[in-house]
Amino acid sequence: MYTLHASPGSSAFAPHIALEEIGLPYKTVMMSAGHPETKSVEFRQINPKGRIPVLIAEGFLLTEAPAILLHLGLTNPAAGLMGSDTESIVRAVEWTNWLSGTVHAVAVRMVWKTDYFLPDASTHGPLIERGMEHLLSAFALVEDKLQDRQYALGDTYSVVDPYLLVFFRWGNRMCIDMQGKYPTWTAHARRLEARDAVQRTITQEGISLWE
Amino acid sequence: MYTLHASPGSSAFAPHIALEEIGLPYKTVMMSAGHPETKSVEFRQINPKGRIPVLIAEGFLLTEAPAILLHLGLTNPAAGLMGSDTESIVRAVEWTNWLSGTVHAVAVRMVWKTDYFLPDASTHGPLIERGMEHLLSAFALVEDKLQDRQYALGDTYSVVDPYLLVFFRWGNRMCIDMQGKYPTWTAHARRLEARDAVQRTITQEGISLWE
Repeated sequence: MYTLHASPGSSAFAPHIALEEIGLPYKTVMMSAGHPETKSVEFRQINPKGRIPVLIAEGFLLTEAPAILLHLGLTNPAAGLMGSDTESIVRAVEWTNWLSGTVHAVAVRMVWKTDYFLPDASTHGPLIERGMEHLLSAFALVEDKLQDRQYALGDTYSVVDPYLLVFFRWGNRMCIDMQGKYPTWTAHARRLEARDAVQRTITQEGISLWE
Repeated sequence: MYTLHASPGSSAFAPHIALEEIGLPYKTVMMSAGHPETKSVEFRQINPKGRIPVLIAEGFLLTEAPAILLHLGLTNPAAGLMGSDTESIVRAVEWTNWLSGTVHAVAVRMVWKTDYFLPDASTHGPLIERGMEHLLSAFALVEDKLQDRQYALGDTYSVVDPYLLVFFRWGNRMCIDMQGKYPTWTAHARRLEARDAVQRTITQEGISLWE
């Protein structure tokens, strides 16, 4: 049985949705919003990188959202969360590596975890402004990439789609006009919102996609 | 036939080594050091993200170093660059996603491409200092992870290893005392340096691992 270390509305929302899609029993260890618990000595023993999500099973511990999503997709073929051919795998990695690195670890973090970059809060203004520029340019690229497809990898839902939903929700929380600026991505988010697994995850985490 | 868009000593050094390991004919498009060409209108048509490496073949274009490494590893099983089982795949993604995001896109970039974060160069000092802290803490984690193994994924060489070599070389270029601080990682780098494919790539890119 899997245990997922998560916090409401964090990037762990994506593997949490994947676990709901799979439908096998699992547990979550749900931290507070903003997950300050990741800084604790106890958690650093679980993941020295101090990050969630972490997926744990008997004799198994996996970090990095893209690796966890891929693992859940590939080891549960019946859930239909991704193809096992090389093309599906590398396209999933191409998407998730960019979302995890350039978009989350850099742009989102510049806006929301600015002290990771500069300890002195009085100097945060220009960094937040620049982070928002990078974020908007990344979001425009997502909108572009979704033009010719229903889902991130094409016509079929995959583990990449819940990960995109994490960023769509974050955009709303940053008061970016997601529906006005990104109509195609909004349609994608509504398509995901209609899935039972997504609804159950939203309820469990006590979050909203839209505010 | 593959074409790799690269620049000497960039993160494209890793897929370049993988192509040499595979041993099939390929071409490189070698940009200048620091690859300012990635900002050109022409290159943005190839990769709107403005980043190298990019791997191109007939009807095929792939971005993101981890995806390219995985693609080369999985589609060339005879080269012995990685296993095709799920565990090998997700462990490779766990390593490369962290190296590409947390280590390269954040820490290395804070030190070397500081204007990505703050346009005003007079404010770069504290950001570079903090980037170096994050980098040293990441490098200590690499040293730790290599303690019980010859290669990133265990006893067997994989596409993750040339990617680690990129960062080892960058550490030397940043005048971090890599050999003094990270003896296990240094042994790993020497193990890689002894490979013909690595030697050929070093010669082609006209770089050194050590300075």
